[in-house]
Amino acid sequence: MDLSGIYPALTTPFDATGNFSAADFRHNLHRYNQTDLAGYVVLGSTGESVLLSDKETEAILATAKEAAAPGKRLLAGTGAESTAETIARTKRAAGLGYHAALVKTPYYYKPVYKPEVYVAHYRAVADASPIPILLYSVPQFTGVTLETPEILALSEHPNIIGMKDSSGSVQRTVEVVAGASSSFQMLTGAASVVVPSLAAGAVGGILALASAFPEKCAALYQLYRQKMVDQARELQGKLSIASKRVVSEAGIPGVKFVMDLRGYRGGNPRLPLLPLSEQAKATLTKAAANLEPAAAVSG
Amino acid sequence: MDLSGIYPALTTPFDATGNFSAADFRHNLHRYNQTDLAGYVVLGSTGESVLLSDKETEAILATAKEAAAPGKRLLAGTGAESTAETIARTKRAAGLGYHAALVKTPYYYKPVYKPEVYVAHYRAVADASPIPILLYSVPQFTGVTLETPEILALSEHPNIIGMKDSSGSVQRTVEVVAGASSSFQMLTGAASVVVPSLAAGAVGGILALASAFPEKCAALYQLYRQKMVDQARELQGKLSIASKRVVSEAGIPGVKFVMDLRGYRGGNPRLPLLPLSEQAKATLTKAAANLEPAAAVSG
Amino acid sequence: MDLSGIYPALTTPFDATGNFSAADFRHNLHRYNQTDLAGYVVLGSTGESVLLSDKETEAILATAKEAAAPGKRLLAGTGAESTAETIARTKRAAGLGYHAALVKTPYYYKPVYKPEVYVAHYRAVADASPIPILLYSVPQFTGVTLETPEILALSEHPNIIGMKDSSGSVQRTVEVVAGASSSFQMLTGAASVVVPSLAAGAVGGILALASAFPEKCAALYQLYRQKMVDQARELQGKLSIASKRVVSEAGIPGVKFVMDLRGYRGGNPRLPLLPLSEQAKATLTKAAANLEPAAAVSG
Amino acid sequence: MDLSGIYPALTTPFDATGNFSAADFRHNLHRYNQTDLAGYVVLGSTGESVLLSDKETEAILATAKEAAAPGKRLLAGTGAESTAETIARTKRAAGLGYHAALVKTPYYYKPVYKPEVYVAHYRAVADASPIPILLYSVPQFTGVTLETPEILALSEHPNIIGMKDSSGSVQRTVEVVAGASSSFQMLTGAASVVVPSLAAGAVGGILALASAFPEKCAALYQLYRQKMVDQARELQGKLSIASKRVVSEAGIPGVKFVMDLRGYRGGNPRLPLLPLSEQAKATLTKAAANLEPAAAVSG
Repeated sequence: MDLSGIYPALTTPFDATGNFSAADFRHNLHRYNQTDLAGYVVLGSTGESVLLSDKETEAILATAKEAAAPGKRLLAGTGAESTAETIARTKRAAGLGYHAALVKTPYYYKPVYKPEVYVAHYRAVADASPIPILLYSVPQFTGVTLETPEILALSEHPNIIGMKDSSGSVQRTVEVVAGASSSFQMLTGAASVVVPSLAAGAVGGILALASAFPEKCAALYQLYRQKMVDQARELQGKLSIASKRVVSEAGIPGVKFVMDLRGYRGGNPRLPLLPLSEQAKATLTKAAANLEPAAAVSG
Repeated sequence: MDLSGIYPALTTPFDATGNFSAADFRHNLHRYNQTDLAGYVVLGSTGESVLLSDKETEAILATAKEAAAPGKRLLAGTGAESTAETIARTKRAAGLGYHAALVKTPYYYKPVYKPEVYVAHYRAVADASPIPILLYSVPQFTGVTLETPEILALSEHPNIIGMKDSSGSVQRTVEVVAGASSSFQMLTGAASVVVPSLAAGAVGGILALASAFPEKCAALYQLYRQKMVDQARELQGKLSIASKRVVSEAGIPGVKFVMDLRGYRGGNPRLPLLPLSEQAKATLTKAAANLEPAAAVSG
Repeated sequence: MDLSGIYPALTTPFDATGNFSAADFRHNLHRYNQTDLAGYVVLGSTGESVLLSDKETEAILATAKEAAAPGKRLLAGTGAESTAETIARTKRAAGLGYHAALVKTPYYYKPVYKPEVYVAHYRAVADASPIPILLYSVPQFTGVTLETPEILALSEHPNIIGMKDSSGSVQRTVEVVAGASSSFQMLTGAASVVVPSLAAGAVGGILALASAFPEKCAALYQLYRQKMVDQARELQGKLSIASKRVVSEAGIPGVKFVMDLRGYRGGNPRLPLLPLSEQAKATLTKAAANLEPAAAVSG
Repeated sequence: MDLSGIYPALTTPFDATGNFSAADFRHNLHRYNQTDLAGYVVLGSTGESVLLSDKETEAILATAKEAAAPGKRLLAGTGAESTAETIARTKRAAGLGYHAALVKTPYYYKPVYKPEVYVAHYRAVADASPIPILLYSVPQFTGVTLETPEILALSEHPNIIGMKDSSGSVQRTVEVVAGASSSFQMLTGAASVVVPSLAAGAVGGILALASAFPEKCAALYQLYRQKMVDQARELQGKLSIASKRVVSEAGIPGVKFVMDLRGYRGGNPRLPLLPLSEQAKATLTKAAANLEPAAAVSG
């Protein structure tokens, strides 16, 4: 499976009563279907997956599967703290037709989660999964980092085909690309270093920012592929600044707000995530305008 | 409600097929009932709560409630990532007769979990809860820390009666005791600093180590209360060393193994937690013997 | 050598042209001589030692030696990055009549400063020194921490008689007191946890706060020694709050400003340390008044 | 001044008695003079500058100036903890004919070194310096990081022409390049991310690894400039692995040992840095052979 390209980490829209809004979710997907995005990541960190009930996750997976255009690759976030629950979720995603599962590290008992714990966990999941597995390291949320030695060990498993690394460490991408076979594919989770990551050998990115700016993010990838070095660097600079304001500083509430600005259905996050303050909204409105001065609703 | 004294953070025993063993859980509680422990914490971090299904958590809460001796205070761990789910769990614990709820911080979206997020979250939970709430800060697992300003703000809520601080920061206990009203009660989660925490004004501790060494931990509290300074410091030193080996380094698998050594029903942890290596078992066997040379099974 | 009691980490006063003011330094010492302070630490972190020339350090050591009352113990900060330079400084302090040397960890090449580096460094210094050595771990400045295993290994050296631990980790004090012989003496560097540290087995403290509030800090020690538990805890709480504002948040410029408030010669720090803003001065003036409402200049 | 290209961070060779060996230093420079290196960094972190006396630093600066080929740019490390001392060192380097000064951040009093401290410090140094200034952020040694806002503020000073960023954060390079004028030049200090940094807009690198592998490091730069993307990525992967083993894990003792292997004069480090163990030597010998199997002494 070729994972190359840009994927948005999809947000989960809620209706006025706080329940998952399948209609709003479909609205977003139908618009994304018209872009150059390579596919979708459903129930990632940006999807507020840790705030959802089991029933809601089922509905979201089913809705995305049905609304996604045929050519789009579908990745489901299925990582849970327990190995057994991770396997169960992965099987459900496979049953619904997802192409691969994105499995974040367990992280709660981090003082005793030595590398061998992760190796055993991912091997057990990959052995049991009907679909290919991507490792997922997101230290800003989990407080744990998959390091190069365990990634390389796991890259040899035939059912582990790649990794999303949201650490922002381009060095790790360099190391993994140098050490793993070419069939193991790296995706960055950091919109701020897409071009450097591609230069390091990554094949694409899974980006929260792409939920708000799908065309910009997809264009960045194309500029790099076409060796338009200066244009790629220039757009990378702009996206990096936008990503810092919207994703790093404001988080999911920020991504959703900018989606609203741009005609998507973002909406409010679920508690304990708080809606943005008016001041934060003003900052993000300006950041969004800086990125795309002319066309506030065009994509 | 007077929270003073020592509470074990109860472990969750599994049977040979990996399911919760109510019989083993009762066995442990019946033995603990005969000690000076002030009560029990059910479904804390040590209880592998993040690895359990909703159905299992219900069974564990019910079993502990039924097996606990009447005089023992019962605290239920009810913290979830979402505010709504935390409230739902807290109400269920209240319905089962628990005296108070121990609510760990949400932690996944830590880059945007500013102090006001925690203040809003805990106020919402405390407002909705039929039983008193204890804050719970456990940075070694969550990667987030409740700091003194937000603790003091929350200490003013009439339904927030105290806090378990597992950070090991005795300075924070000093600060909170100095700044909060005397009705707000601090409990340490670190067996290594029980005596210094009591000297700082804490009223007791919630200790994983007390699942394996309930009498020793309870005795430490009594020695301090009786102003037997030198004996308290000496026992504190021994418990600190044991806690480092068993709890900090070996984690839940270590606590369970030493429980097995001492006649409790510890058993294996759930994956991804791995059982101890033989080498780790030898280290812990020695550490347990150092703490209690004469009576390996007496408590 | 009995190290018990409270020592101020002396500040270095500069005159209007920015040079060391021996007169102001003597002024401070003559006032400290009239208190219950056990002695003085000269050229510690609070003394801006890393901002001074070799010539200035000589003058400061000589001035303090001459101005200190006979009964006061004199400790010289002599730690440098290189082992040879540390030995040279220690010998100079010994030659001037200092009773012991306080040797902070080397820290610049921290990625390769493994425990064996520290063990070898301190043994070389202790072997060469004519006077006893105290280890000094101050992670907030150096980014490195002496941990219990290397401390215990070094505690066996006959010329290493104790340690100043500024980490604020009371747990480490518990561990070291439990593991070292009783001749190895622990001093805390954190005014916020003096009482808990004494309860853990420390014999005293070396405190920046004691340069501004010598009587208060000395009184805290006495209250603990006299087993006046409640009064000690109450004063500890007040000193903890003052220490946070003055020492932790405002640093040396803060300590010097509060010294000025209280009739000592604090003065400005040396660049790159900036003088306090007016807002910071107002905060500290209030903090100082909270600690000692009645007598702003009495000690 | 055009800073583009690769610079080795020069090591300081010591003779059998532990004194600076000008002869060995010249030997190394004469060989480096024959490569494509853009110039030299003298008295950087790799030069053990924090372990040297003032007299030694003078000798090293003079020797390098005299031994360097005319076309090589000369950068002197002049950062000290105090602003005045930094200015004094910078003026001395200027007097000796150095082209620019590399000024690391002060770092000891990091809790109070807010961004405004760094801005004031660097402005004072740049105002007083006869030669251009480069900022230098090296958090692995100092524990402090220059962040984008203060870098951008300082980039506007006419005498601050660029920065060496050793943090390894390619994101920061993206941000600074996007935000600063094109005359502000970024150099990476991390051999592991040279190609990604160049893709992000950096103009070169200052590398400890280039003291041992000058031709390889210079070739990496040329491959990128010639848009030989695949070859650049492949060599980057190899250099990244070598850098991890030699520079990150073994530090200066490792760099010096591999220099010895390759015909340069590395020699022993100064205490407290310990010489390599035999096991570490074997690891590095293998790492060096992996990077350059055919020609162990050719450069």
